Amino acid sequence: MGDDVPKNCSSHLGCGKTVFVRDADRLDLGRALFIVTSKSGGTAETMAQYLVVRARLQNAVGNDVSRHLAFVTDPEKGALRTIARAEKIPALDIPPNVGGRYSVLTPVGVLPAALTGMDTAALLSGAAEIAKRCETSELSKNPAGTFAMLQFLADTKLGRHIHVLMPYSDPLRDIADWFVQLWAESLGKHRTTGDPGIGPTPLAALGATDQHSKVQLFMEGPPDKTVSFISVDEELVKLEIPKLHSDVKELGYLGGHRLGELLDIERRATAGALARRGRPNLTIHVERPDARHLGLLFMFLEIATIYAGELYGINPLDQPGVELGKQFTYAMLGRADAEQARREWNMLPKPDARFTI
Amino acid sequence: MGDDVPKNCSSHLGCGKTVFVRDADRLDLGRALFIVTSKSGGTAETMAQYLVVRARLQNAVGNDVSRHLAFVTDPEKGALRTIARAEKIPALDIPPNVGGRYSVLTPVGVLPAALTGMDTAALLSGAAEIAKRCETSELSKNPAGTFAMLQFLADTKLGRHIHVLMPYSDPLRDIADWFVQLWAESLGKHRTTGDPGIGPTPLAALGATDQHSKVQLFMEGPPDKTVSFISVDEELVKLEIPKLHSDVKELGYLGGHRLGELLDIERRATAGALARRGRPNLTIHVERPDARHLGLLFMFLEIATIYAGELYGINPLDQPGVELGKQFTYAMLGRADAEQARREWNMLPKPDARFTI
Repeated sequence: MGDDVPKNCSSHLGCGKTVFVRDADRLDLGRALFIVTSKSGGTAETMAQYLVVRARLQNAVGNDVSRHLAFVTDPEKGALRTIARAEKIPALDIPPNVGGRYSVLTPVGVLPAALTGMDTAALLSGAAEIAKRCETSELSKNPAGTFAMLQFLADTKLGRHIHVLMPYSDPLRDIADWFVQLWAESLGKHRTTGDPGIGPTPLAALGATDQHSKVQLFMEGPPDKTVSFISVDEELVKLEIPKLHSDVKELGYLGGHRLGELLDIERRATAGALARRGRPNLTIHVERPDARHLGLLFMFLEIATIYAGELYGINPLDQPGVELGKQFTYAMLGRADAEQARREWNMLPKPDARFTI
Repeated sequence: MGDDVPKNCSSHLGCGKTVFVRDADRLDLGRALFIVTSKSGGTAETMAQYLVVRARLQNAVGNDVSRHLAFVTDPEKGALRTIARAEKIPALDIPPNVGGRYSVLTPVGVLPAALTGMDTAALLSGAAEIAKRCETSELSKNPAGTFAMLQFLADTKLGRHIHVLMPYSDPLRDIADWFVQLWAESLGKHRTTGDPGIGPTPLAALGATDQHSKVQLFMEGPPDKTVSFISVDEELVKLEIPKLHSDVKELGYLGGHRLGELLDIERRATAGALARRGRPNLTIHVERPDARHLGLLFMFLEIATIYAGELYGINPLDQPGVELGKQFTYAMLGRADAEQARREWNMLPKPDARFTI
């Protein structure tokens, strides 16, 4: 039985995301390149996996380790930069003023995209294009401003605290998860000591799948949600549904339509049903899910998040709330500089019951 | 360029979930078995994909089609049962009184589990075991009752409307998505005409990944959430983090610990940090992620959902809110029996602006 070897995945979801490859003994390490991504060079899971990978590489390729590693990290600071300098490991920069969740259009996202063959020039020019469009102070012509304002007003004036993003497109599915990190970590904040906390809760969904999972709640549950659909105009594959079983009521009506048409009709039907029930929703139309439009979408949502931060009156670029958990982790692992956290941890009441199933 | 061939996936997420296989021309259809799962035999996406697959099979194997299909459907009713009878296609039963989201322990989930080699006897006996334990009316000894009561009280008495399920275990990751369907579709209801709607909103998360995504919001956002962690006691793989870079502060403290230990410490640190901030959370402990414990988890959460339905005073077994969207879909596709929905659809105000990026 091979054991698990972890591989760091410079995913578009930012730092700390990991993919474990089972039976990685099957990997030919002599031909492998590992990309280690951490802005600070201190993310515990990422660094732990780097150490595991590094030890394996040393066994496999000896002194050649630096030819099998690439780092994506801060241009000046942190452990990865220091190691890169000492060992001449190629290291790409994350601009110091760009935090993890905004880093998809830096080498954090662009390097893996390039390695998969994506047209990264189109990705970045799409992003630049929408950034330009979102400079105007005329709200109705500023898509990011419009989106941010609608969500902010829905939350603060109409009690719509939960913001659903629901692409009707398999290639754009993970945009929703990416948005969840962006919206949650940027806007979930307390403003002053004693403030109970503000910020909408983002929720990822996928059409048509989640019509059978979450739409019941969106339709009949509390009126505390907005739903934003993403629709792709162009059908990627024009696949016609064959005219079979035409005598069967549940099947006959489908024949002659296309699969992409069915998906689009289901989106319109779901949006219409929500509207009929008084549930606010909007649809973001995207021509096609190519590199340029990915760039448009990423930058559109990043700028919308910054605008929303301004509307909520918080700093959308920090994440002070995750620090305590990190400090407790350092304390339990015995990191030298975690003495204060260790005292706080030891004083914390521990559960006296254990919920085991 | 091969086009997309859809394959129906009898996933544990119930009906309507689909997996599209790119370049399915690579599939050797003569050796393929397609499992078509729909309780009603009427789910539009599933049926559309069945028709596409069937046409391909007919091209490839001619009259032998029925040897390459298996259905999972209602024992008596619906189009799939009718076709199975007429063409002698093997068809397994979904018990009439078990709805889609509760069907994972019927052939809907058990057939694919068996095909992947899972010990399905252990799966079902785990489920039976916890069902027995959840029969007692002594609340503190009834885990499903306890879970349901805690979440219900947190929602209705303390304004904790959002219920997060966050496994710290890659093999159990998708349990959270499965729970989202179960909790959302079962409890998101309106009770009477004019009722604005009730029901908590479930949110799936994954440890440690989402420490870098959602935990900022859980820590500092509005006090409207409960977090339920799932912890696996036994380390699947005891992989030690090598002692490398011991002179580097951000890395040195990790060496000698195990990856599984790090994950567990991060969970405890996150739970402790949430508690320190007054954010209610609990941890469900599971010995190991094997078939028996999967059965325990599925049945535990299903029974908890039924109990919660009783507490909320709604029917946790129906989903009337999804009907209108289905009817609008039938209307647009021209299904014969959708005349009334067509009139309602035509009267619905349509958006006069288009939000394109």
